[in-house]
Amino acid sequence: MKALVYHGAGKKAWEEKQKPTLLDPTDAIVKISKTTICGTDLHILKGDVPEVTNGRILGHEGVGIIEEVGSAVTEFKSGDRVLISCITSCGKCEYCKKGMYSHCEKGGWILGHMIDGTQAEYVRIPFADNSLYHVPVGADEEALVMLSDILPTAYECGVLNGQIKPGDTVVIVGAGPIGLAVLITAQFYTPAAIIMVDVDNNRLAIAKTFGATHTINSNNENAMEKIMQLTEKRGVDVAVEAVGIPATFELCQSVIAAGGHIANVGVHGKSVSLHLETLWAKNITITTRLVDTVSTPLLLKTVTSKKVEPSKLITHRFALNDIVSAYETFGNATKETTLKVILTNA
Amino acid sequence: MKALVYHGAGKKAWEEKQKPTLLDPTDAIVKISKTTICGTDLHILKGDVPEVTNGRILGHEGVGIIEEVGSAVTEFKSGDRVLISCITSCGKCEYCKKGMYSHCEKGGWILGHMIDGTQAEYVRIPFADNSLYHVPVGADEEALVMLSDILPTAYECGVLNGQIKPGDTVVIVGAGPIGLAVLITAQFYTPAAIIMVDVDNNRLAIAKTFGATHTINSNNENAMEKIMQLTEKRGVDVAVEAVGIPATFELCQSVIAAGGHIANVGVHGKSVSLHLETLWAKNITITTRLVDTVSTPLLLKTVTSKKVEPSKLITHRFALNDIVSAYETFGNATKETTLKVILTNA
Repeated sequence: MKALVYHGAGKKAWEEKQKPTLLDPTDAIVKISKTTICGTDLHILKGDVPEVTNGRILGHEGVGIIEEVGSAVTEFKSGDRVLISCITSCGKCEYCKKGMYSHCEKGGWILGHMIDGTQAEYVRIPFADNSLYHVPVGADEEALVMLSDILPTAYECGVLNGQIKPGDTVVIVGAGPIGLAVLITAQFYTPAAIIMVDVDNNRLAIAKTFGATHTINSNNENAMEKIMQLTEKRGVDVAVEAVGIPATFELCQSVIAAGGHIANVGVHGKSVSLHLETLWAKNITITTRLVDTVSTPLLLKTVTSKKVEPSKLITHRFALNDIVSAYETFGNATKETTLKVILTNA
Repeated sequence: MKALVYHGAGKKAWEEKQKPTLLDPTDAIVKISKTTICGTDLHILKGDVPEVTNGRILGHEGVGIIEEVGSAVTEFKSGDRVLISCITSCGKCEYCKKGMYSHCEKGGWILGHMIDGTQAEYVRIPFADNSLYHVPVGADEEALVMLSDILPTAYECGVLNGQIKPGDTVVIVGAGPIGLAVLITAQFYTPAAIIMVDVDNNRLAIAKTFGATHTINSNNENAMEKIMQLTEKRGVDVAVEAVGIPATFELCQSVIAAGGHIANVGVHGKSVSLHLETLWAKNITITTRLVDTVSTPLLLKTVTSKKVEPSKLITHRFALNDIVSAYETFGNATKETTLKVILTNA
């Protein structure tokens, strides 16, 4: 089969690889129908994720059709259409038992990281019964690809951890695909205002169409001052950090109201300054989270009932065997406002 | 009357001051029976709290007898024995309405800070109906002084914010009065283990008698390594920071388990490094809080029912007019293991 293979920092190739086979009775082999590229894949390609080794097939998102299942798999059979979760979970360890699948002792985020991933014609999914979902009849497969990672990440790490509630004023720092997915799912809870901050006017314009009540281009104006002015100096109830650099986490701290929540979603490579000299008395909560995908069944219902339309995040489509071009487009996202790309295995 | 008056960094005096009078219909004048000194008073005396001005009477803890009430006070009358909360609350602003009395728009921590405090023969208490509690019949007044600040601070900022639950492994960094009060109130929720970290062996010995399952003197051993060893490398479910310096907050970050809670109780004067480069994916929660004293009624019941005995925190007693000696003893706390001092107005 063909697959997108990592060959060390800066190097990748669409090349021939051995088709995966069942290794454990709990495995399934899935023929990929559609997959996508994640910001995390770009981090890997930069060499930022050293545990990813030369020869690894990338990708942790996708939908497909089951080709074969191991003898212990009871919930899926050959021919089933499935959504692949970015998080693999054994369902039996202490972390799985408390719903913290992200830290599963035998799984977690392993696809396209510790084991071969979904940017390929076929993928082996361990613990299939706990790591796959049936595709509902009539569902839009492209929309469902957004449920492998981006939508549960935005919802769990941003909206749920931020405890967004009716009437809240929320700021989302970063209007990339994840920030926009936070914007979409935040509206489940009817906040009074959602302020979107980014440096790209095109993304901010999209944010407006997705329901942002205010947008701030932090290259053109002082985001902190503007937010304090919009909130009559009280600050925001919830600040969602969806970039992953010190400056954006700093902004969240500078605008958080007393009693507020800072929900970190961004993947950080450096430590940040935490201003306990002022925050110690401000009754704030800061959360971090690797998505657990506990919300995937819930989100599936919001998609099939059209309460959310994650396909709005898809801006570009490619054939799977043209994935190298797709990486180029996705890697230069601001050039033509690329959000998510869909790769189809013909 | 006599009062302990702040005269700028490093200077204080027990001197004659005007006896307070009612200024607003919601005020009460309380004759102090017993009061104490808080670590925060030492911070003020060092000049760390610049909003405290020359001439201010210090103190925000105490019990006393109502001398006089304003025309709008309905829940208290002259002669009532009362517990004074360190937090003054109007009961009417947006923060009060959500139980965040610490940030009351007309109150909060103002006693011995923005207005004259309790280290005096008499004190004016604004919003008396919301800021005083009746002393239960037969209650130990000295124990109740611990309910003005230290016990609700430990319980709300440490135990409740840390979400301590049965079976948890908890580390409390700092075995001063506040850390020990966290240790006492943490046991409401039956954690499996409570590890106490300090640099003073006497305080650690006291912690053992108060229920600590393990103690670590971080001057003598590597606290991080010891805690990871005690938790079989998983780390702790809850870390309570009860010191207020970067090194102790750093220790909390280094030993927190995936999914754990870091509850900050310490008063910090500097920013700290937050290690988002590792913590972003660890599903942790960090909280800060100025005590709201929402738990005072609950804690009163635990004291009167002898579920907790906060008087165990009292190590020294002085006459109120000997408060300058009491400051000396409290300010050199490690010399003779001073925890809380009680000052009695004869």
